[in-house]
Amino acid sequence: LQTSDNSQIPLCNRILAKEKDDFLYHFGISKTEEDIPKAFGDVKFVCTGGSGSRLALFAEMFAKEVGVECSQNLSKSDRFVLYKTGPVLWVNHGMGNPSISIMLVEVIKLLHYARATNVMAFRLGTSGGVGVDPGTVILSTAALNGELQEYHIQYILGKKPLLKELTELAKQMEISVESGKTLCADDFYEGQGRLDGAFCGYTSEDKFNFLRQLYDRGVRNIEMESTCFASMFRRVNVPAAVVCVALLNRMKGDQIHLSKETYTDYEMRPFKLVTAYIKRKMNESK
Amino acid sequence: LQTSDNSQIPLCNRILAKEKDDFLYHFGISKTEEDIPKAFGDVKFVCTGGSGSRLALFAEMFAKEVGVECSQNLSKSDRFVLYKTGPVLWVNHGMGNPSISIMLVEVIKLLHYARATNVMAFRLGTSGGVGVDPGTVILSTAALNGELQEYHIQYILGKKPLLKELTELAKQMEISVESGKTLCADDFYEGQGRLDGAFCGYTSEDKFNFLRQLYDRGVRNIEMESTCFASMFRRVNVPAAVVCVALLNRMKGDQIHLSKETYTDYEMRPFKLVTAYIKRKMNESK
Repeated sequence: LQTSDNSQIPLCNRILAKEKDDFLYHFGISKTEEDIPKAFGDVKFVCTGGSGSRLALFAEMFAKEVGVECSQNLSKSDRFVLYKTGPVLWVNHGMGNPSISIMLVEVIKLLHYARATNVMAFRLGTSGGVGVDPGTVILSTAALNGELQEYHIQYILGKKPLLKELTELAKQMEISVESGKTLCADDFYEGQGRLDGAFCGYTSEDKFNFLRQLYDRGVRNIEMESTCFASMFRRVNVPAAVVCVALLNRMKGDQIHLSKETYTDYEMRPFKLVTAYIKRKMNESK
Repeated sequence: LQTSDNSQIPLCNRILAKEKDDFLYHFGISKTEEDIPKAFGDVKFVCTGGSGSRLALFAEMFAKEVGVECSQNLSKSDRFVLYKTGPVLWVNHGMGNPSISIMLVEVIKLLHYARATNVMAFRLGTSGGVGVDPGTVILSTAALNGELQEYHIQYILGKKPLLKELTELAKQMEISVESGKTLCADDFYEGQGRLDGAFCGYTSEDKFNFLRQLYDRGVRNIEMESTCFASMFRRVNVPAAVVCVALLNRMKGDQIHLSKETYTDYEMRPFKLVTAYIKRKMNESK
């Protein structure tokens, strides 16, 4: 799966490469004021998701489960959180492509300065399902933009081996799983054809035609970050997987009504799957 | 300035208008489980900005200054914070149009259900200046999208009276102020022509040509939320102003290097200006 032994993350910016210093503004981390290779040089896995408090919880749980220490929040800015548990970096991305794009650029620069090698990336997210049961974990095979145009589809790097491994692992763990295309919308309401926004200039029939069109084209879930996540890591040759649980089946409704227990159960599924995968990789490399 | 006496915020969604319940998912607030008119019916001003902790601080400071109580965080979700100080609602929006669009749709629905009247909205933000000194507060006259196309310009509602009042007030308060167009980018690095991202396929000359072109077209700052902010409130007829301080002059560099004191001083300027404006309006209506 790994692209090559000891492959570092490139810096695709000749201008910046000549600069001595760099301030990663949205983490509050300076290249020259901290020993970035020492702090982040052993990172092998980047795990991200929208909410900062959820990612902090994931980091703590991972540390407990694997028996490693969980760092303090290493971000000095309140824009994103940043936790480290052994070889795993946990960072949140907020909502939408513009937000995740800021985090990804700075994580890529951070890991380049850290001289981290053979890094993999996972987005552990929530999403709306399209024709799948709530609680199903969707492994994205491709990410489509809001125009649904074929030439905007971003195929996910490392598609076959990583997807196959994750799918098999989910089945062993009895986690409900499907793979399919992911629609990456730029908003939560109108861009996803919801009927419950503040604005709605279309009918219920229009909505279902839209969802059926998505389903027929292989789309199984809708979220807001996959195109940027997949393309940014593709540009630096980092294998990346989008692993999102469906909180609802949009074919059956728009609102998310889940008990706290069910919500937590669903939200934990991508975490459990990716944690099991990382543990396996950590054991393999021992 | 107010659009009309006692004008409520419309719900531009006939389908939702027929539904009894509505769950504002990203605030964790249910229409039927809470007395929304009681809790939010007296809101006259919505103040927003990117960071949750900054908005919480603003709410506390406003409460102290005006002598009203500051609520607890009224949001039950960790996606956005929500504070209330008398007639002012403080809510953060994260980074980028997709993120702010989610918050705005739910705030508009909340204030519609609350039957709030004569509401005004302010975005108190940070931004990169274009040919203006760091620390200058920019009052946006229009918001341009990333393609800079004229037909995408979103003129800010209530432009003349609100801008004029804010400009005069800033001058009285000796806050450095300019009005001009705002470029609303979809990312922080390449979309803004920065040279310090993880990727850079253009030259320093390309960058300065881009910035000069912006300046010549009247652009005075660059941020990531103004088009959505302006257009969403325009759709429901709420007067709205984008009030952002410039953290740097992009004509002179890309990186933000400010001492903590200077940063705090700059960051406070939009807050001070908008607070003074709101206090004046509160006194006028007594």
